This record gives sequence, C-alpha cells and structure tokens, in this order.
Amino acid sequence: MYEGPIQELIDELSRLPGIGPKSAQRLAFWLVKAPADDAKRLARAIVEAKERIAFCRECGNVAEGDLCRICRDPGRDVTTLCVVEEPKDAATIEKAGVVKGRYHILGGAISPLDGVGPEDLRVQELLDRVARDHVIEVILATNPNLEGNATAMYVAAMLTPFGVRVTRLASGLPVGGDLEYADEVTLSQALEGRREM
Amino acid sequence: MYEGPIQELIDELSRLPGIGPKSAQRLAFWLVKAPADDAKRLARAIVEAKERIAFCRECGNVAEGDLCRICRDPGRDVTTLCVVEEPKDAATIEKAGVVKGRYHILGGAISPLDGVGPEDLRVQELLDRVARDHVIEVILATNPNLEGNATAMYVAAMLTPFGVRVTRLASGLPVGGDLEYADEVTLSQALEGRREM
Repeated sequence: MYEGPIQELIDELSRLPGIGPKSAQRLAFWLVKAPADDAKRLARAIVEAKERIAFCRECGNVAEGDLCRICRDPGRDVTTLCVVEEPKDAATIEKAGVVKGRYHILGGAISPLDGVGPEDLRVQELLDRVARDHVIEVILATNPNLEGNATAMYVAAMLTPFGVRVTRLASGLPVGGDLEYADEVTLSQALEGRREM
Repeated sequence: MYEGPIQELIDELSRLPGIGPKSAQRLAFWLVKAPADDAKRLARAIVEAKERIAFCRECGNVAEGDLCRICRDPGRDVTTLCVVEEPKDAATIEKAGVVKGRYHILGGAISPLDGVGPEDLRVQELLDRVARDHVIEVILATNPNLEGNATAMYVAAMLTPFGVRVTRLASGLPVGGDLEYADEVTLSQALEGRREM
C-alpha cells in the first residue's frame, strides 16, 4: 500500500482488462516519472474519447459524429456488407483493404454462457439495411470460433428470406483463433476463398 | 486507423511501457464501453497522482507531502537503513514487515549500458543520513542482479569510512531475478540470512 494518490492510481489502473496489480504498479510509477504533459495528454485522451466518441447510426462502428467515415463515403458499395462482431474487427479488415463494401457491427457474438443472446446484437438493424439498400452480398466475418460460428449461422438463417448472397470468410483463419490477430495476407486469402452458407 | 478521439486514445495508451498496439486498442475500447464515471475516475487519478505526488526529502520515496509516511513515523528506528533501488522495492519489503528501520531509495542502479552512473543515484543523501542519524546498520537490498550487485558494492565501498555495519540481503532470492517478484517468505529468509559485505 502506497500513500494516497499513487495507490488510487494503482487501484484505477488495476481495473483495466488484462492489467494485474504488478502491471498497474509499473504503469503508475511510469506515469509519475513521465513528463507532466505526457500524463495529462493521456488523461485528456481518456476523457475526450468518452465525450466525443459516438456510434454510427448505420453500421454501429465508433464514429465522431452521426455517421462513421466509411458510411459517409459515397464511394463505398452499399450492396456489400461485411458483418463483424466488434469495431476492432472492422478496423483489422479495413487495414487489409479487401472489402469494397461497408461494415455492420453486431456488437458481440451469441454466447449463452456470457448471457449474450441474439436479441443483444444489432441483427434487426442489419436486416433493415439489407432490405433498404437492396444488398446483394452479406459477408459474415465473425470470429472463427464457437461463438462466432454460431452467430454466423444465426445471422445467415435470418437473412434467408431476403434471398441475399450470404458468405463466410474462408478457412485459412486459424480455427479457435481471434480475427484481431490475423495478418493481412491470411485475411486476403480468407476473403478470396469465401463460400456460400 | 480509427476516427479522431479513439485513435488518439490508442496512440496515448501505446506510449505506456509494456502496452503494445493490440493492448492499447483493447484498453481503448474497454474505456469507451465502460461507464463514463469509471473512465473519468482513471483520468482524474492520473492527473492527481502527477499533481499531488512528491518525493520524501529524507528517503526519496513517493510521498504526499514533504516526508513519506515511514519517515514521519517516530516509531521507526533511524539507526537502521534499508537501501533499495526504487519505491516499489521499498513497498515490497514493507509488505513483508521485516524491516523495523527506515528506507533509502537510490532511484535506480548503476548501469553503464543505460548511462546510469553512481552520480545519478541518491548516494550522497545516504551518506549524509548515515552521518547525521548515527546509523548502525545499512542493509543493501538492491536487486540480486548484475546492476544491483554492482550498486551494492559501490555503496558498501562509500560507506567504509563511516564504520557502519553494511549487510546485503542473503541469497534465497533467485539470482538474476527481480526483487519486485519475491514472495514474503523468501524475503524474510533473505533478511534473516543477511551477511557482512
């Protein structure tokens, strides 16, 4: 136990995911030793991210305003939607530059053990977009694990009445893995080899 | 690349030690999803730690005022000093409750490769305390690695003219390890078995 402010900082840092007490202590002492400007910039970035970040009303991705950068871009094909679990997955795919369409963020995956059911995901919003924008193809890019596969199956089933082409990222992604850690070449190949569901 | 505030937050988090781009992204999205109060409390803790934390003018440990809690405590023996590299080392030893005296924080260890020489450490302050407080024993609890051993040798040499008892934590600490990760029992045994230098 340290004195007042340093212990409070350690306690707050310990609440972050993946940061244990030792890491929190290390970060706290680094911050205390760092130039005041650096520490304040981090504090400000945290507050600003909370205050300024909104979620795109179309795709559900993080956005600064009403719509995200991709949904604002008229050059992006509205008839192809790439469905992912989280904003970070869209960012990973976007970095590979292999999707010419737009994204749809579900906000997670079906996971009964964590109490996440289909009603907690942005599936209705997806169906609305598919109908409104005359979508031709929906690429299901949920994680290649149990929850991601179950979610893809569920979404594919819900899309059946729309007669839209529904594809899933090909194997090539390591099974049981996490989309976030895929490299760009693997992602490209997975997209090339996508198959009908 | 994300839009404005979220990318700025990821960039700032990436500057923290031991936090890579993936961890920074994970932390940033956690913060964005967390209740606003939690994120603001972390931001405030960072700013407050920078503003309110000072360093004890006696031992060099982190303190809220002019003196740290231990140097303020008249019950702590002034004639025994436990010399450590960093505040976190004093905290580790203090948790084990094996030192009845006070601490002296050197602020690092001699490391020519990192450009840290004896003149960068709080050695003169240690000698001043030893002379002023008629110190009987100095326990050298620098890390049991190359730099820590070299630092202990140097400090022991500087203390020779004072005719003070100079001891080093006993082996029992894993060699090449880091004091921060020692458990309390090992620390106790290391203190029991301390030897003259």
